[in-house]
Amino acid sequence: MQDAHRLVRNWMAQAGMKCRLDAAGNLFGRFESTVPTTPRRILLGSHLDTVVDAGKYDGILGVILGIAVVEALRAEKVNLPWAVEVVAFSEEEGVRFSTPFLGSRALAGTFDPAHLDLVDPAGGSMKAALEEFGADPAAIPEARAPRGDIVAYVEPHIEQGPQLELAACPLGVVTAIQGQSRLSFDWSGPGGHAGTVPMNGRQDPLAAAARWIQAVERIGLATPGLVATVGRVVVQPNAPNCIPRRVTTSLDVRHHNDSVRVQAVEEIVAAANQFSRDSHTSLLVGYDHHHAAIDMDAHLTAQLESAIAACGGQPLRLASGAGHDAGILAPIAPIAMLFIRCRGGVSHSPDEAVLQEDVAAAISALVLFTRRLATDSPPS
Amino acid sequence: MQDAHRLVRNWMAQAGMKCRLDAAGNLFGRFESTVPTTPRRILLGSHLDTVVDAGKYDGILGVILGIAVVEALRAEKVNLPWAVEVVAFSEEEGVRFSTPFLGSRALAGTFDPAHLDLVDPAGGSMKAALEEFGADPAAIPEARAPRGDIVAYVEPHIEQGPQLELAACPLGVVTAIQGQSRLSFDWSGPGGHAGTVPMNGRQDPLAAAARWIQAVERIGLATPGLVATVGRVVVQPNAPNCIPRRVTTSLDVRHHNDSVRVQAVEEIVAAANQFSRDSHTSLLVGYDHHHAAIDMDAHLTAQLESAIAACGGQPLRLASGAGHDAGILAPIAPIAMLFIRCRGGVSHSPDEAVLQEDVAAAISALVLFTRRLATDSPPS
Repeated sequence: MQDAHRLVRNWMAQAGMKCRLDAAGNLFGRFESTVPTTPRRILLGSHLDTVVDAGKYDGILGVILGIAVVEALRAEKVNLPWAVEVVAFSEEEGVRFSTPFLGSRALAGTFDPAHLDLVDPAGGSMKAALEEFGADPAAIPEARAPRGDIVAYVEPHIEQGPQLELAACPLGVVTAIQGQSRLSFDWSGPGGHAGTVPMNGRQDPLAAAARWIQAVERIGLATPGLVATVGRVVVQPNAPNCIPRRVTTSLDVRHHNDSVRVQAVEEIVAAANQFSRDSHTSLLVGYDHHHAAIDMDAHLTAQLESAIAACGGQPLRLASGAGHDAGILAPIAPIAMLFIRCRGGVSHSPDEAVLQEDVAAAISALVLFTRRLATDSPPS
Repeated sequence: MQDAHRLVRNWMAQAGMKCRLDAAGNLFGRFESTVPTTPRRILLGSHLDTVVDAGKYDGILGVILGIAVVEALRAEKVNLPWAVEVVAFSEEEGVRFSTPFLGSRALAGTFDPAHLDLVDPAGGSMKAALEEFGADPAAIPEARAPRGDIVAYVEPHIEQGPQLELAACPLGVVTAIQGQSRLSFDWSGPGGHAGTVPMNGRQDPLAAAARWIQAVERIGLATPGLVATVGRVVVQPNAPNCIPRRVTTSLDVRHHNDSVRVQAVEEIVAAANQFSRDSHTSLLVGYDHHHAAIDMDAHLTAQLESAIAACGGQPLRLASGAGHDAGILAPIAPIAMLFIRCRGGVSHSPDEAVLQEDVAAAISALVLFTRRLATDSPPS
C-alpha cells in the first residue's frame, strides 16, 4: 500500500492536487476551488485495496477516474464553487482484519474503536498496522467529515457483475445498494457407517441440506431481482464411507427492496425447517448479519444519468449487489455510483478487464456531471 | 498395540494356547488337537486395531470370543481333529498408513511388498514400524497360509449397523460382504460474486451437486438392499459471498448383488451428467475403487445358523455392508461371519455397546458350531 500511495500521490500532485493522509490511512488529493476557500467539497473516488489474487480494477479504477476528472477540470479551467477531492480509501475489503469498510467508516464517523484491537493472521493488531503505515489511530474520531461538508460523494466502480455486458451498455447508474441477509444453517444427525446403515434408517443432514440448496435456488429464480446464494458447505466427518453427522451451510440473500428480501429469507428458513423435520435431522438457524438496502441520492443519480446521455450514452439503471464505500457514506452525504462494464462480469480475479473506451466514456460523463453540479446547485 | 498383545497373549496362555507373532505382526494362539499333530486348523478371530476415537468392540470382540471358545472347548475336553487357532490381526482399519487389511493380506498371501514403503503422518515407514514392533517385514511372504491349511475361518464381529437391533435378534449370520463402488465427482463453473450475478445467469456447481445428492438418496431408497452415500463434499472457494466455482463429492455404493450395484452406479452417473448439462457446469467423474461382493461359504454359514438355532436363537441372515478380514481370506479358506447386535447400530464411536447376554449366546453358538464342524466333516 505504501508503493500504491507513492504512485497515486504522484499522479494527484501532477493533476494539481494537494495530498494528505487521514488518521485511518485514507489518502486524499484536494483540488481547490477558484472561489474564496470553502471547506465544502465534491468527493470522487473509491478504495485502493482489493482481495488476494484479485484484478486491477475493483476499487482502484474509481480512484484513478477521480484523478482523471480533476485533470480534465483543471485543463478546462472550470470555475467551481467547491473543492473537488479525490479519496483513496485505505481498506474496503476487510481482508487483513476480516472487517470491511474501515476507511470509509472513519470518514463517516462510524469506525468502531474496538476494531483497533483486531489482529491479523500474523498476530499484529490493526492499531499497530495503522501506526506502522504512518496513520494515527488515536485521531480516527477527528477523521470524521463534518456534517454538510461533503456536497456529493460519487463512486465510479467496475460493475463486478454481467448486467451491463448483457445489455451492451458501457455505463450504469446505481439506484441502490441491495440490502443483505447472511444466515448460517447447522444440520445434524446421528451419522453412521456408509455400508451398514440401510437407506430407510438414515437421518442424513447432507440429504436434507441438498434439498434445501435446491429450494434456495428455486426461490431465488422465482423472485425478480433477488439473489440467494449458498456459498459455503462444511461436512463432518467428511469421509466417503461415513454418513454425514453435521453439515453447516451459509446463506446470502440480497434485494433492493427490504421487504422482498425479508420475505424470501422467511420462505427459505421455512423450507429448511420443513426439510429438517422430514429427514428427522436437527437444525439450528443463525441470523449472522443483515443490512437494509441503501438508496442512492435521487437528484445526483438523475444528474449522472443525464450527463451520460449528454455524452451520447444510454446508461442502464441497476442495483448494486455488492457493498461499497458509498453505502457507508450515505448517512453523511448525498451519494451516487457510476458502474463501468467489466468483461464477463468477472471480479475478484486476475481476469478483471474493462474496455478503454468505456473508461473514456466514464471520464467524459463524470467531468460533465461535476461541471453541471457546480452550475445547477450552487453552495447553499 | 504392545500393551494389547501382552494382555491378549496372557489370556491365550491361560486358555491353554501357544502364542506366536507372525512376520506381519498378527498374533496367533494355537490350541492343539488331541489327535496326532496336523498343521490344519480352524481359525477364529478378528482384528485388534480400531479407528481413532473408537469403541471397545469393533474387531476386538471377535478376538476375545475366539479365546472364550477355546476356553470352553478345553474345559469340555472336546476331541478335535484339527488345531483351533485364534488370530488377532494386526491392522485392519488402515488408520496409520491409509491402507486397510494389512494383517489378513499377509496371511492370504496378497500383501503388497510396496506397501512397506508407505509412510505414516509422522514420516515413519511401515517397514520401520513393523521392525520396531518386533515383526519381520522381510519374512511377510512366509506368513502366507499354505493352501488347504485353514479348514474354516470364522469371524465374530459386532454388526456396526442397526438391522439386528431392529429385528430384535441378538445374532446374525452373514451371507456376503457387499460389493462396493467408490467414485468421485468434480463439478465446476465460473463462480462469481453472490451479490452481483443474477440468478438466471448462474452456472452453480453446488446447485447441480445438490440435485444429484437428492438423486443418490432417491436411487438408494428405490433399490432394495442398496446403500448409496455422499459422505464428502468440498466446495471452493467456500465463502458465503461467493458462488461456488468447484464442488467435489464422493459416492459410495454397496450391494450384495454386483449387477444391481453396477446398474445403480450407472444410473447415478447418468443423473450427474444430466444435472451437469442442465446447469451448464462441467463434470468429471472418477472411478476410484470397486470390489465385487464376497459370498460366505454356504456350508459353514448353514452350520453356523443351525448352531445358533440349536442354542435357542433365531439368527437373522444379512449382508455385511462393511469390509472385514474374512473377505480377504475368502480366496484361501472357507469363510463365515457371525454378527453380534450392537446398541443403536453405532460403531467407530466410544458409544459402541453390546449386551452381555448376546455375547454369551455368541460363545455358546460358536462352541457348538466348532464341535459339530469337527464331528460332521472330519479332515480329508
